[in-house]
Amino acid sequence: MTRSATIATIAHEVGVSVTTVSKVLNGRSDVAPGTRARIEESLERHRYRRRSKRPVTGKGQIDLVFHEFNSAWAMEIIRGVEAVSTAAKIDIVLSQLGGEHLPPQQWLDGVLARRPLGVLFVLCHLTQVQRQQLQRQGIPFVVIDTDSATSASVPTVGSNNWNGGLLATRHLLELGHRRIAIISGPEDVLCSQARVAGYRFAHDEAGIALDPDLVRWGNFYVNAGDEHSMRLLTMPDRPTAIFAGSDLQALGVLRAARRLGLDVPKDLSVIGYDNLPVAAWMGPALTTVNQPLQDMAGTAMRMLLDLARGVDLQTSRVDMVTELIVRESTAPLKDAHAT
Amino acid sequence: MTRSATIATIAHEVGVSVTTVSKVLNGRSDVAPGTRARIEESLERHRYRRRSKRPVTGKGQIDLVFHEFNSAWAMEIIRGVEAVSTAAKIDIVLSQLGGEHLPPQQWLDGVLARRPLGVLFVLCHLTQVQRQQLQRQGIPFVVIDTDSATSASVPTVGSNNWNGGLLATRHLLELGHRRIAIISGPEDVLCSQARVAGYRFAHDEAGIALDPDLVRWGNFYVNAGDEHSMRLLTMPDRPTAIFAGSDLQALGVLRAARRLGLDVPKDLSVIGYDNLPVAAWMGPALTTVNQPLQDMAGTAMRMLLDLARGVDLQTSRVDMVTELIVRESTAPLKDAHAT
Repeated sequence: MTRSATIATIAHEVGVSVTTVSKVLNGRSDVAPGTRARIEESLERHRYRRRSKRPVTGKGQIDLVFHEFNSAWAMEIIRGVEAVSTAAKIDIVLSQLGGEHLPPQQWLDGVLARRPLGVLFVLCHLTQVQRQQLQRQGIPFVVIDTDSATSASVPTVGSNNWNGGLLATRHLLELGHRRIAIISGPEDVLCSQARVAGYRFAHDEAGIALDPDLVRWGNFYVNAGDEHSMRLLTMPDRPTAIFAGSDLQALGVLRAARRLGLDVPKDLSVIGYDNLPVAAWMGPALTTVNQPLQDMAGTAMRMLLDLARGVDLQTSRVDMVTELIVRESTAPLKDAHAT
Repeated sequence: MTRSATIATIAHEVGVSVTTVSKVLNGRSDVAPGTRARIEESLERHRYRRRSKRPVTGKGQIDLVFHEFNSAWAMEIIRGVEAVSTAAKIDIVLSQLGGEHLPPQQWLDGVLARRPLGVLFVLCHLTQVQRQQLQRQGIPFVVIDTDSATSASVPTVGSNNWNGGLLATRHLLELGHRRIAIISGPEDVLCSQARVAGYRFAHDEAGIALDPDLVRWGNFYVNAGDEHSMRLLTMPDRPTAIFAGSDLQALGVLRAARRLGLDVPKDLSVIGYDNLPVAAWMGPALTTVNQPLQDMAGTAMRMLLDLARGVDLQTSRVDMVTELIVRESTAPLKDAHAT
């Protein structure tokens, strides 16, 4: 193993031309799969890294890739990235993976061929082989990941989900609520688990027993909030407060409450998560946990630009602070519902 | 005037080097303003157009530029563009003009230097000189413009605002409403005027006199809906229905109604405009005019790709059809409020 491996070394070892090795490095698809695998293996064994400085182009580009565009949430991220990229005179190349969490090789090949200054992944990540492909070409990447699912070696910006769960639940307990339901995100996603853990901790801290029937898992969209709420609110001993996993879910909770003739916040307190613009526009305006999406995106973008300039990151994993925004959808427990 | 003007001809005429002419064509800023102006003038007099075919790059890029990112509305456009660009294996370079309707020259210089396949403008346009700069470099552009403010020679995709105004107002008249307020967009924007014209036409058609006090102009955001509604709904002879200029404005109307203790739709019918996802999530779900933003964006993108391939457009100005989506926020007039 040597730090001085060149494309020629690799080509010689594998028994192919320098051009063929270059093709693999540049994400070109016209290399036979078997040959490509042997070249990849040799590149990795030699820890090949591109040496030449990036050619100075007038204006650089970064890639911003989403696992999917889901309305206002993604727009907040775009706005945060855009603010930093405009100031730095860098263009954003935008794409989305149609709901997948790992990009197809074809997408990555396009990136390798274009050689952007860096790549920002939102709620998606890379296989180890894909990571190596970017690293070899000197293309840095940062992940915006509320899930913390990415490997510890990958620069990541997230937010403190446990604290978000804690703050929301404490607020409801302080208002006198004792039967507090939580509708979290999918059970296999760490951010959902972290919020539920914060919710549990707040109960323990207050010495209040928790009914496991009041803990629900769903996706982050309106319908999950609506459907879970319909079930929760028609229980014989219904919850007097619901803490939703997103503002969109909370919209679903408000819909269900309305359908059942329950007034929010008189009959039911509701807390959302994210603090999207829509949260303030609702009637009643939504009490919610602020997940500072624009700040998260801006921080990730600055980390990416530092990496692109060869600056070492002071910290490579940042969790932004969450805070509770109290609006109109939460109120003290009515005596009639005290348990 | 000749079709065969070359960079050399221009350089000779102006008395500068070929390199200097190239710099102007490529949007480079290191040319003295006076020299640049003389070169621009000569280029335009000769109707200089780039001759060489665009070099075939594996994957092209188009520029998508917004006058500003305003939450879910812009996201619908992005989704529509993205669907077409992904299928065509073309990348989107995203930017916004911070609320300006004309791009700064610096932005355009960046585009000229990068030479994308084309540029899609959303609610923004170009000066005549800027248009010429893109045309000389063979960079086509299409405008998504609900305002129809762009010159007739520019390929444009919009939607039928007059028809949207007509459909919404007819619906309210058919429900028995006679005092129908309209909160439109800014008065100096053609799409706002077109919707008010449709609203007027529906009144004329039904032989119903219109109270000019019920016609209001505002921006497209929540607060405009809220503030105008507070004034409208506290009039001695308040309207029984409000037709808003956007779904966000309609959210403001719902807020004001709630604050005044008016039930929607029992005491007040409300219609939005756009049919953003949020319209269906409200309680009550919003009756609204569907402006097919994703389709508009997809159509504009296909026009742009045709232009980039040198295909002539069958029609260069398209207005997509608007339609009324009836949900829960409109109801027949209560007798108590009949005038």
